[in-house]
Amino acid sequence: MHKLVLLPDWLRRYQRRWISGDLTAGLIVTVMLIPQSLAYAMLAGLPPQVGLYASVLPLVAYAMFGTSMTLAVGPVAVASLMTASALAPLATAGTAEYIALAVLLALLSGLMLFAAGLLRMGFLAYFLSHPVISGFISGSAVLIAIGQLKSLLGVPLPSGSIVDTLAALLASIDRINPVTAMIGGAAIAFLLFARRRLAPLLETLGLPSKQAQMMSRLAPMAAVIAATVAVAQTGVDRTAGVSVVGAVPSGLPALGLPSLGWSQLNGLWLPALLISLVGFVESVSVAQSLALKRGERIRPDRELLGIGAANIASAVSGGYPVTGGFARSVVNFSAGAHTPAAGVVSAMLMTIVIAGMTGWFESLPHTVLAATIIVAVTALIDIDTLRQAWRYDKADALSLLLTFGGVLLLGVEEGILLGVALSLAVLVWRSSHPHMAVVGRVPGTEHFRNIDRQQVETLPGLIALRIDESLYFANAHMLEEKVESLLASHPETRGILLIMSAVNQLDATALGALTDLEKDLASRNICLQFSEVKGPVLDRLRPTPLGQRMKDRIFLSTHQAFLAFAGTDSPPNEPTRDTRWISTP
Amino acid sequence: MHKLVLLPDWLRRYQRRWISGDLTAGLIVTVMLIPQSLAYAMLAGLPPQVGLYASVLPLVAYAMFGTSMTLAVGPVAVASLMTASALAPLATAGTAEYIALAVLLALLSGLMLFAAGLLRMGFLAYFLSHPVISGFISGSAVLIAIGQLKSLLGVPLPSGSIVDTLAALLASIDRINPVTAMIGGAAIAFLLFARRRLAPLLETLGLPSKQAQMMSRLAPMAAVIAATVAVAQTGVDRTAGVSVVGAVPSGLPALGLPSLGWSQLNGLWLPALLISLVGFVESVSVAQSLALKRGERIRPDRELLGIGAANIASAVSGGYPVTGGFARSVVNFSAGAHTPAAGVVSAMLMTIVIAGMTGWFESLPHTVLAATIIVAVTALIDIDTLRQAWRYDKADALSLLLTFGGVLLLGVEEGILLGVALSLAVLVWRSSHPHMAVVGRVPGTEHFRNIDRQQVETLPGLIALRIDESLYFANAHMLEEKVESLLASHPETRGILLIMSAVNQLDATALGALTDLEKDLASRNICLQFSEVKGPVLDRLRPTPLGQRMKDRIFLSTHQAFLAFAGTDSPPNEPTRDTRWISTP
Repeated sequence: MHKLVLLPDWLRRYQRRWISGDLTAGLIVTVMLIPQSLAYAMLAGLPPQVGLYASVLPLVAYAMFGTSMTLAVGPVAVASLMTASALAPLATAGTAEYIALAVLLALLSGLMLFAAGLLRMGFLAYFLSHPVISGFISGSAVLIAIGQLKSLLGVPLPSGSIVDTLAALLASIDRINPVTAMIGGAAIAFLLFARRRLAPLLETLGLPSKQAQMMSRLAPMAAVIAATVAVAQTGVDRTAGVSVVGAVPSGLPALGLPSLGWSQLNGLWLPALLISLVGFVESVSVAQSLALKRGERIRPDRELLGIGAANIASAVSGGYPVTGGFARSVVNFSAGAHTPAAGVVSAMLMTIVIAGMTGWFESLPHTVLAATIIVAVTALIDIDTLRQAWRYDKADALSLLLTFGGVLLLGVEEGILLGVALSLAVLVWRSSHPHMAVVGRVPGTEHFRNIDRQQVETLPGLIALRIDESLYFANAHMLEEKVESLLASHPETRGILLIMSAVNQLDATALGALTDLEKDLASRNICLQFSEVKGPVLDRLRPTPLGQRMKDRIFLSTHQAFLAFAGTDSPPNEPTRDTRWISTP
Repeated sequence: MHKLVLLPDWLRRYQRRWISGDLTAGLIVTVMLIPQSLAYAMLAGLPPQVGLYASVLPLVAYAMFGTSMTLAVGPVAVASLMTASALAPLATAGTAEYIALAVLLALLSGLMLFAAGLLRMGFLAYFLSHPVISGFISGSAVLIAIGQLKSLLGVPLPSGSIVDTLAALLASIDRINPVTAMIGGAAIAFLLFARRRLAPLLETLGLPSKQAQMMSRLAPMAAVIAATVAVAQTGVDRTAGVSVVGAVPSGLPALGLPSLGWSQLNGLWLPALLISLVGFVESVSVAQSLALKRGERIRPDRELLGIGAANIASAVSGGYPVTGGFARSVVNFSAGAHTPAAGVVSAMLMTIVIAGMTGWFESLPHTVLAATIIVAVTALIDIDTLRQAWRYDKADALSLLLTFGGVLLLGVEEGILLGVALSLAVLVWRSSHPHMAVVGRVPGTEHFRNIDRQQVETLPGLIALRIDESLYFANAHMLEEKVESLLASHPETRGILLIMSAVNQLDATALGALTDLEKDLASRNICLQFSEVKGPVLDRLRPTPLGQRMKDRIFLSTHQAFLAFAGTDSPPNEPTRDTRWISTP
């Protein structure tokens, strides 16, 4: 059973000296979280307060159930994009119905994750290959950046395929709002400068390296404050048509569960499943890479509960799907967070913001939010993995590129489904062509090697075939074909020895194929033998009809099988036993 | 390149003495094909002539491209059910629009199969595990049999879930047409008798066993003729409301391609894909089991072309999706078919039937067609595979049962998708928990065995871990976790040796995990070593950054790795080298 006690492990063993690190980290993450939660809500097609709501209770819920000491949960770019893409066909962005569906999506996603956690399905964290994840994230980043151009430039663009969006942008380039574009451009320039140059600059000014890095992470907040003040002072929102956030309702949301209709479930279950899968895979990979640096351990089964609880908490408090974010988690880690108490600190600070400070965002221009999103997601575009995969393994590189293309051209859900299908297809295709080698004895030893690679001795009439892969439904037939083609070229064969040293699994389909093969060979007076069958495989093989029929033909070692075929079970040092062996050229 | 010559191989090497076998087989298959093509068209919701059309050109097209000498192509039960299920949401059964969509489905399916053949994707024949296929076929058989009750009993029933159908049947049990039910019941009784008793009876009457078997296969035709004559004589179709086939247009269909609209494609591509996959998998398994009995070979890549061409030919001549049928192929084989010429004979005979004999079917009662379908599909329900899988492998048995249940409760398409997902999930889940063993040296040898199973010697500070599975995205993390937990229990460790003798594949994700592991261990002053890396894996590993960094730490044998760790590269017979080894309890 999972320990579902109210007091989490980290709280029971909390040490006083951790307080300062957790407080600092909680504060810094909050300063990052405010602009991000507003921006990602905009990306998801939701009003700003929904992003703020998703940044309170989920952090506390994760602290209760999760196992990462440093994962920062909340609204993230990719899940926001997936939310927008899931809800677009169902309702108009920004309407009450749209918000209700977003809340429902968080609830469904949370219930799925929590249930998977109770069923201990943490292995799902490794269901996607690394290249597929990389292609998916890069594709989503490009999609997000292009989608933000309309807010950045203050020009209405259709939300559809990226080709449509870019074509519409070219067609309406004269309708760009110049003041909006100027503010957005300045924000991008500042944010890029902050990311690349600010930390070194601060270091030359005498700040320690770690603090300098941390300061540079606060640039988005600085941009938000500067732009808000500038717009409020100049009034360009009224005079020049610069779109601003406007009035944000203050006060905490009423807690409550959304009502669940079957008709809505129909359109939401698949997006909820995909958001859960992607969010979970991402969270675990971020949490794990941070945990490794400190020798901590992540338990994927418990992470399902943690992220599931965070999403349920988000739904209960009027928020939308959340997951562990990469950038905020890294900052949380470097700022010295020791425990999820840092997240609880953030949640408390966010509560204060929501309760009394939402008026401050009234003059915040949308273009600055778009700028923070665009700069944030460009960091997600990952060329390195493609370059490495291309060099190491073309099939992996191809699935990366196809997933990337799928996200851009077909859409975000289709892209991830394509990625899952590709991961699995590559896996099946690879093991559907198992390596097999005919072997012979290295003279003077009991070792057996590939007859094509070494000078070895064989017994006339016996073919010894080493199978270098587990046998299962997708490759069992290849064994049959290999044996047939060997028999066609060696018509004098009276015995086939299958060396099973690399067969770790043998499924029911493969068992059936071996059973058929044995019968077929027996009807042609050819004797089938096995050697070096692994313990677990042998345990399951023995009670089957095939195991029963072959029980005197399964040998511990290949050498014993050769001796048995030669008809001499004389002790290994008897010289006579070797008279029948012949050498390969 | 494939040999796409006009004259197929079998025709160029045709021998005169094969003619009589091919003629006999062609004739007998035609006698089976007439009632089956009418019945399966009814099952697919299509008028009878569509079934007849699907039994002419597809046979010729398969003869041109296929590689099986005995596969009998044409309408089959499962593909007919899948056609009905695909078209039900799109049009009303029997209407011109419905027929046009069925033709389109055959075209799409044919193009997909042919394209897959050109891309040499024959490995798809083994994409489904045997238990999943068995569960799917059994579920479809039950679904088909229940769906035929309305025709068998002459009572209108809703086509929906099987629960609805059975409930409606119970509610309208008083509205059963008694004459229809009597004719249907008599036909079922006769067909079951023919299947179980007729052959032995004929044998006792002096007929050779093979002929007796063949005669019993003609029972459906006998039932059709008897019932048609009886209905025509008694006129119960008019007096007692027995539903009959009625007028069937005679004459050959006009050849031509259906027009393809994008809007229709949207609803048809997935069903076409699934019909192609299922039909192809079934055809290859039938063709292969027959080919094995005669030492012939099936080439799956060419089979894709053959079945693809058959479907395109079906569409061109007004037919619906076809594939290789099990029962007809077996009869074709036993009746002595040597080449696809037998299929060409059937096609010619069917042409004669269509051209001039369709009037004969006018008084054929639907209930007899339903009876032939029900008796035919009961033979498809497969309990044996379930029983064997249950004994051998619970995961396989469970995927069989879930696929069976999925087909019955969710529908035929959902069922096969569930089956594919289950096949792959079981595969991923199995290899996501790879077997790993810490090994030591068997005293006095250079063999290394599991320290938990045998008394062996180890070197203090060195952990030798044998990995018994290929490493890839779904299990690479387990290695990391295993090493971490070993280090936690052996804090004095200074070296980790990974024995890769069973690692047949190493994908990009696993390479990344090993790279991280090596860096992490190096930072803790622990030395990572590899031994027994397979040739193909080593070839790809060497040029990578990890391969470069580790190039002096990859050893041919585990023994060499141990010696290197012990710091002595002295010759194997030097006694000093063994001073540091310690024995496990």
